[in-house]
Amino acid sequence: MSKKEYINIEEIGEFGLIEEIKKMFHDKHRAETLMGIGDDAAVLNMNNHVLTLLSTDNLNEGVHFDLFYTPLKHLGFKSVSVSVSDICAMNGEPIGITVSIALDSRFTVPMVKEFYEGVHIACEKYGIDLIGGDTTGSYKGLFINTSIIGRVEKERIAYRSGAHPGDLICVTGDLGGAYIGLLIMQREKEVHIEAPRATLKLEGYEYPIERLLKPEARLDIVKLLRELDVVPTAMIDVSDGLASDLLHLCTASNVGCVIYEDKFPIDPVVYRTALLEFNLNPTTVFLSGGEDYELLFTIPEKYGDLFENHSDVTIIGKILPQEEGTYMVSKSGNKYELIAQGWDAFRKYMRENPEQ
Amino acid sequence: MSKKEYINIEEIGEFGLIEEIKKMFHDKHRAETLMGIGDDAAVLNMNNHVLTLLSTDNLNEGVHFDLFYTPLKHLGFKSVSVSVSDICAMNGEPIGITVSIALDSRFTVPMVKEFYEGVHIACEKYGIDLIGGDTTGSYKGLFINTSIIGRVEKERIAYRSGAHPGDLICVTGDLGGAYIGLLIMQREKEVHIEAPRATLKLEGYEYPIERLLKPEARLDIVKLLRELDVVPTAMIDVSDGLASDLLHLCTASNVGCVIYEDKFPIDPVVYRTALLEFNLNPTTVFLSGGEDYELLFTIPEKYGDLFENHSDVTIIGKILPQEEGTYMVSKSGNKYELIAQGWDAFRKYMRENPEQ
Repeated sequence: MSKKEYINIEEIGEFGLIEEIKKMFHDKHRAETLMGIGDDAAVLNMNNHVLTLLSTDNLNEGVHFDLFYTPLKHLGFKSVSVSVSDICAMNGEPIGITVSIALDSRFTVPMVKEFYEGVHIACEKYGIDLIGGDTTGSYKGLFINTSIIGRVEKERIAYRSGAHPGDLICVTGDLGGAYIGLLIMQREKEVHIEAPRATLKLEGYEYPIERLLKPEARLDIVKLLRELDVVPTAMIDVSDGLASDLLHLCTASNVGCVIYEDKFPIDPVVYRTALLEFNLNPTTVFLSGGEDYELLFTIPEKYGDLFENHSDVTIIGKILPQEEGTYMVSKSGNKYELIAQGWDAFRKYMRENPEQ
Repeated sequence: MSKKEYINIEEIGEFGLIEEIKKMFHDKHRAETLMGIGDDAAVLNMNNHVLTLLSTDNLNEGVHFDLFYTPLKHLGFKSVSVSVSDICAMNGEPIGITVSIALDSRFTVPMVKEFYEGVHIACEKYGIDLIGGDTTGSYKGLFINTSIIGRVEKERIAYRSGAHPGDLICVTGDLGGAYIGLLIMQREKEVHIEAPRATLKLEGYEYPIERLLKPEARLDIVKLLRELDVVPTAMIDVSDGLASDLLHLCTASNVGCVIYEDKFPIDPVVYRTALLEFNLNPTTVFLSGGEDYELLFTIPEKYGDLFENHSDVTIIGKILPQEEGTYMVSKSGNKYELIAQGWDAFRKYMRENPEQ
């Protein structure tokens, strides 16, 4: 930390701000990182026999987050998690990340440092380096872009396109939490707007709120798959919602699928809050919630035993030939075609199919 | 091209928009690109014996460009050039680029396609692939982020930090053009605001305007250096302005420098327009203009003959021991300390030093 604590970004300028950020990242996690911040480009020494992975994501204020209920440190952490999740979804190992921000005049140096503090915590957690970024002005709003580089052995890469009929469909953790977290925070924001002195009611909702504000990429699952010596035939991370992402995977693989409602992993608080407080069918929330950053992957049937009653992985269905379609079997045994649309369209569908 | 020409982005959605962009980039330039757009991350096969380079840049409306006088196709081209320039500045070869955009509701599908048409032309020019990106909404304004991956042999990399006393300081092309182009366009915008029917007066200013709107990265110089078997001891691209970027290089290398005003390469139209129409000293424009994306590099003195009277490279000074400072010698033989500040601060300095 510098002796003087700067507040105004104008006072220290772009280069001063970069220096402040650089100081926070003096430690290095990866032998591959020869040059991180501080030159025209990052320099990495990638070994032979591996493939290089690169992915980029935007996180924009008003679209992807609301600073009313998003602490900047959490936002920094989430920005990194979102990108690490993309590398995990290729069955890869993340190495370095660039985090670029465009800021309007509301932002101060301590605010930027709080954001990068979250970036730093995430880099520690995932064992990666911050290797670059750009800091610029914006009209209005905070715009974040992350670009991540990773690696994977050729024989371990998992594209979206490798699923075969008969493969089992697995999902990690549970789904729908981030969406319920979002609804809770939006409800509290409305209360706050009407009664600014009211205290936020967040007790009991810690899990869905953390799923929204501080999601963790499933790098542990990539490591688990390596330990088990299993390579998924196809993999994707669940960012848009399970139905949408499963359909992406099926389209890329030219296959169909069936998933079973009675297998869906849903957290009990998420289930109860959806049903009792927001009058939503938990299955709909599970299928269309999005932003949970869990992994969805397919494995040959012979590996099924490895994940029976596994605490982190649930088998929810199997891959079918393409002509058999893509559908869900409900608890009562009815078939429903999976819809690749976002929340609102899906809710409409559910209203028209009252059993759901 | 699809049969139906979509206009509204809402009508086709994010995935539809990505499909439209994908169709424009079905050709592939690089053997390294195993998977570009279409999975969670790009997949690259980087050979052994090379280092991987990664760089990222923001280009934001209202900060880096004004859509009043910036055609979207030019903007797409420029977005790629700016990133390619960063790879060139490491003496590297670009391989693939991600181009992410955040858009407000003004934008239509044809506008996005026009932008990516410029990206496509640039990818063709530099022989690289578009390997990913993200398309999202924004409050207000167009936000662009590019992340580029490249490669360089270990023995050919040029950091900012390798300059030694006695090395010659070289700059490619000419400088100040982009800044004069900006002043011309701002003048025309003011005229247009006062008299919307007036025709823009751009004849005769083609060169500075092209420098502003459609800069080209100096990949040709990277190739020239390879042909000549010269590795710069240090290199940086001139994006902030020569004085600022030269001081970056000297700081990173722990050296001083002297540059000679009578050597500065300035285009005659730029020189004349600065002096006669904007009442600016062309030397000031040269030193502080910025955005020209030329290369600034240092070479051992023994290579000096290679660049005497070279059409693309000018030797403008030499590296000194750090204690001798960083300064310019004017045409009349006076010494002026180089100032690392942007345009306005520098102009103030020049007013107080009337010989300049």
